[in-house]
Amino acid sequence: MTKFARNRNDLTSRGKATKKRIVEAAAKLIYANGAERVSLDEVMAASGTSKSQLYHYFTDKEGLVRAVIAFQADRIVAANGAVLDRLDTFEGLHAWRDMVIAANRGFGGCPLGALANEFAATSGETGELLDESFAAWGEVIAAGLARMKAFGRLAPAADTKALAVAALAAIQGGLLLSKSARSSRPLELAFDMALGHIERHRATKAVNRAV
Amino acid sequence: MTKFARNRNDLTSRGKATKKRIVEAAAKLIYANGAERVSLDEVMAASGTSKSQLYHYFTDKEGLVRAVIAFQADRIVAANGAVLDRLDTFEGLHAWRDMVIAANRGFGGCPLGALANEFAATSGETGELLDESFAAWGEVIAAGLARMKAFGRLAPAADTKALAVAALAAIQGGLLLSKSARSSRPLELAFDMALGHIERHRATKAVNRAV
Repeated sequence: MTKFARNRNDLTSRGKATKKRIVEAAAKLIYANGAERVSLDEVMAASGTSKSQLYHYFTDKEGLVRAVIAFQADRIVAANGAVLDRLDTFEGLHAWRDMVIAANRGFGGCPLGALANEFAATSGETGELLDESFAAWGEVIAAGLARMKAFGRLAPAADTKALAVAALAAIQGGLLLSKSARSSRPLELAFDMALGHIERHRATKAVNRAV
Repeated sequence: MTKFARNRNDLTSRGKATKKRIVEAAAKLIYANGAERVSLDEVMAASGTSKSQLYHYFTDKEGLVRAVIAFQADRIVAANGAVLDRLDTFEGLHAWRDMVIAANRGFGGCPLGALANEFAATSGETGELLDESFAAWGEVIAAGLARMKAFGRLAPAADTKALAVAALAAIQGGLLLSKSARSSRPLELAFDMALGHIERHRATKAVNRAV
């Protein structure tokens, strides 16, 4: 399930597979080295594709970078959604925390955060796509918190969108500090702060499930 | 006042001025474009220095990048310290918040955070220097919170170091999301979460000042 799919082109299944191979190879190289340090030649070599194939799917390097941003956003939104789309208890929130921390055991940082640092100031399509990607991630968090509200766990007055943005900021900052310190602790401290912030909006009285 | 000065070389005052000019020009270019996109030729042009001058002070580009990291860390620690070194009330904490938010009115993001995203995974000196820089920033926050404790504002049991790391994560994530959204709101929401987290460790009873 991808909430952020952007496969608008009508490609044959073979074309889709080639395009996917290019994007996945580029995503891996860019995550390891940063987009600026990765050349299209390296992407071709890693994906076993030719220049004409690559330019068939992407107009230029920034077009490929945008496909990588969308790919990473899809993956992240799907992984977060797998837990958050069923969220109805505070234990569920902690399971989400544990999932994100486990996913960062290599301390590689956030692939989307790294791309945002390289391209967020870019005007035009790439900068917008990054903003949309963070917004999509924030929305899947906010939707989980809205479920918590519907289940009577969070107070009706809780601003789930604002809580989601703050939680996403904690995750991003925690991932960056953990990458720098090569330790899970900054992410853990940041995430626990975010969960504490959410828990302060706990409903004062249990309400019966609407469903 | 710099808590993080690394001017270990004995340079003449003229040499120091030249070195400073190179570092400041490089810092400006790197902040605007990212280190990978900035060439030494551009740094020479912007600082009005020659190749031999530049290589007199820096062995290579990464050496210059390290000088820029130390320069940015000094600036940030000094700016934060100007408020935090006198911290003794919760109003002071809010003044710190307002200062950081005002400093980010251009939504350019954090110069140190951007460099960390480019180089944190680097092994060796540059990666270590980034980690030390964040640690120095965390320490100036922790020292401010320790003052709050000494003044009886925060509970004796408050873990000021852990609170500082979480606050720094909120700032970093907030700055990144604000850069992407070109809006101050994510940083504001993240910072308010961090202050709420700190305020939850408010001393239950006012204690007289020790000093």
